Amino acid sequence: MSLLHGGDLAAARRLFPDAPEPFVDLSTGINPHSYPVPQLASEVFARLPQASALGRLVAAAAAAYGAPTPDHVVAAPGTQILLPLVAALVPPGRAAVLGPTYAEHMRVAALVGHRAQEVTDVAALRHADLAIVVNPNNPDGRIIGTDVLVAIADELRSRGGLLVVDEAFMDVGPAGGSLGCDIGRGNIVVFRSFGKFFGLAGLRLGFALATPATVSRIDAMLGPWAVAGPAMTVGEIALTDAPWASAMRAQLDQEAHQLDQLLASAGLEIVGGTSLFRLVRTHAATKVFDHLGRAGIFVRRFSEQPTWLRFGLPGGEGAWRRLRDALAGAAVLRD
Amino acid sequence: MSLLHGGDLAAARRLFPDAPEPFVDLSTGINPHSYPVPQLASEVFARLPQASALGRLVAAAAAAYGAPTPDHVVAAPGTQILLPLVAALVPPGRAAVLGPTYAEHMRVAALVGHRAQEVTDVAALRHADLAIVVNPNNPDGRIIGTDVLVAIADELRSRGGLLVVDEAFMDVGPAGGSLGCDIGRGNIVVFRSFGKFFGLAGLRLGFALATPATVSRIDAMLGPWAVAGPAMTVGEIALTDAPWASAMRAQLDQEAHQLDQLLASAGLEIVGGTSLFRLVRTHAATKVFDHLGRAGIFVRRFSEQPTWLRFGLPGGEGAWRRLRDALAGAAVLRD
Repeated sequence: MSLLHGGDLAAARRLFPDAPEPFVDLSTGINPHSYPVPQLASEVFARLPQASALGRLVAAAAAAYGAPTPDHVVAAPGTQILLPLVAALVPPGRAAVLGPTYAEHMRVAALVGHRAQEVTDVAALRHADLAIVVNPNNPDGRIIGTDVLVAIADELRSRGGLLVVDEAFMDVGPAGGSLGCDIGRGNIVVFRSFGKFFGLAGLRLGFALATPATVSRIDAMLGPWAVAGPAMTVGEIALTDAPWASAMRAQLDQEAHQLDQLLASAGLEIVGGTSLFRLVRTHAATKVFDHLGRAGIFVRRFSEQPTWLRFGLPGGEGAWRRLRDALAGAAVLRD
Repeated sequence: MSLLHGGDLAAARRLFPDAPEPFVDLSTGINPHSYPVPQLASEVFARLPQASALGRLVAAAAAAYGAPTPDHVVAAPGTQILLPLVAALVPPGRAAVLGPTYAEHMRVAALVGHRAQEVTDVAALRHADLAIVVNPNNPDGRIIGTDVLVAIADELRSRGGLLVVDEAFMDVGPAGGSLGCDIGRGNIVVFRSFGKFFGLAGLRLGFALATPATVSRIDAMLGPWAVAGPAMTVGEIALTDAPWASAMRAQLDQEAHQLDQLLASAGLEIVGGTSLFRLVRTHAATKVFDHLGRAGIFVRRFSEQPTWLRFGLPGGEGAWRRLRDALAGAAVLRD
């Protein structure tokens, strides 16, 4: 798990038992500036989540994510749990995942019976029954234009194929970069994550945007009450708070720029990312990972890409200072 | 939805727009005396749910529910979302659901490709590929003994069949009534709901107990972070609070007895239930449902069983008084 996913602090402590606490966790792409969680009424925890509240949540999501109508949106307890349901929308066939990327897409495509293959060329997606793109990509931030994606979807449609676009980090992606408004074409499913940009990954809230017919199929598998009361309540408030989102995007852009400067001044080559994480490439990746870990700073490494390290944003001045000090003391970066 | 499931107050308001507010919601079997939710640290909402916390949660669930080890337990955001995953553990074949019961089992069995049939005789379960029993049953409280269920599982096993026992209300069932300690036999999956007995249905937390191999298959479909941070935190605390559970069982028993007396004194025939709900049978069911609804008391009716009404427990003296007054004023019950 520690090599597959970020955010597992127990794994960090097993790897670096003598590191100073608290750990600075830079191993995820989750916004460290969480949307403020309001006081939640006790009935939010006690009662079954209400269908009326679900209706307001998907309406807020449709507006925030540019889906044609709320009927084009399905809400779920995190995007992750939707992966097998969506991958199974097409019969077992050839799945192509544009990589390297978030490892769960390959795992889940194979799990539901596809012959899953990672491809590095966008054009190779056109021959698949199920084509999966993370856009912007995690961890390198690669962005595929909507015109390219629409053309792929059109080609797949003629053979009954499905295009899945995981827009987990599109909140900090380019304006007009989402395929959410193109889902009416019929064979496109777009994932949107709530927890990353809003810094509330513990709530578990995610969405799929698709045609109403596909939304109904997914909803039937999820069944009633898939989304918890706290996630519904906070999700609706946050998704309708456009001023917060706008200000947060600007703040994250500024902080990502600050992180780039810090990493570059330490001699690290920045090869991509989004405003929520930066990817560096260095032949000293393992040594840097260990050096930072011993200093109580947990970053993300990649077993398949041993020269890569991903840095999330530090969450406050103390975390920035510890990262700055640790990088300054990394003799390995000056060898 | 209003006819399929309880707890939808917007549906109640559409049916009875002139009813006095607040509605007294007796339409579910959820404990009105919720386990107290502690103040939750902000990181419970912000961080990805931690694998270490999940480990503590499933250990608490294994101990509370009598599973052999934590490896025999999978945690999920509510039991509902597990239904299709478990129904799909056996290839499409004949599914038999002991009914009448919770409607989702039939719907989901058919959804994943089984020829689903409701049976009323326990013996008919023995010829199925997938046999589903709700025990104690909702809404009539029927209890099937563990010896009978084990014999059915043994017979199914010889043909590769699976027995699913939904113990959503076993917290208030008979001592020794759970099949949780028999899951080692291999072809048994037991569902346990957290939200009903602990009165925290909005948290979304449920469990499947099964062999470690089956647990792994279900976990692979759920993927990481299936359970939200608040559910993990509260679930672990509540499941290890044996004194609360013991005192609550006694309190619910007493209140269910009080509800029986009230319903009987109104002339209603009680035909079953558990300490979390009581089932009555009356040819005036529709009229009683409407009379109570106009008084702002929402009970559960059943489209397939038009003479049945299910009453959850009132949550406080005000709710008891309103139910008492409404029943006393129900002329239809004295016709």
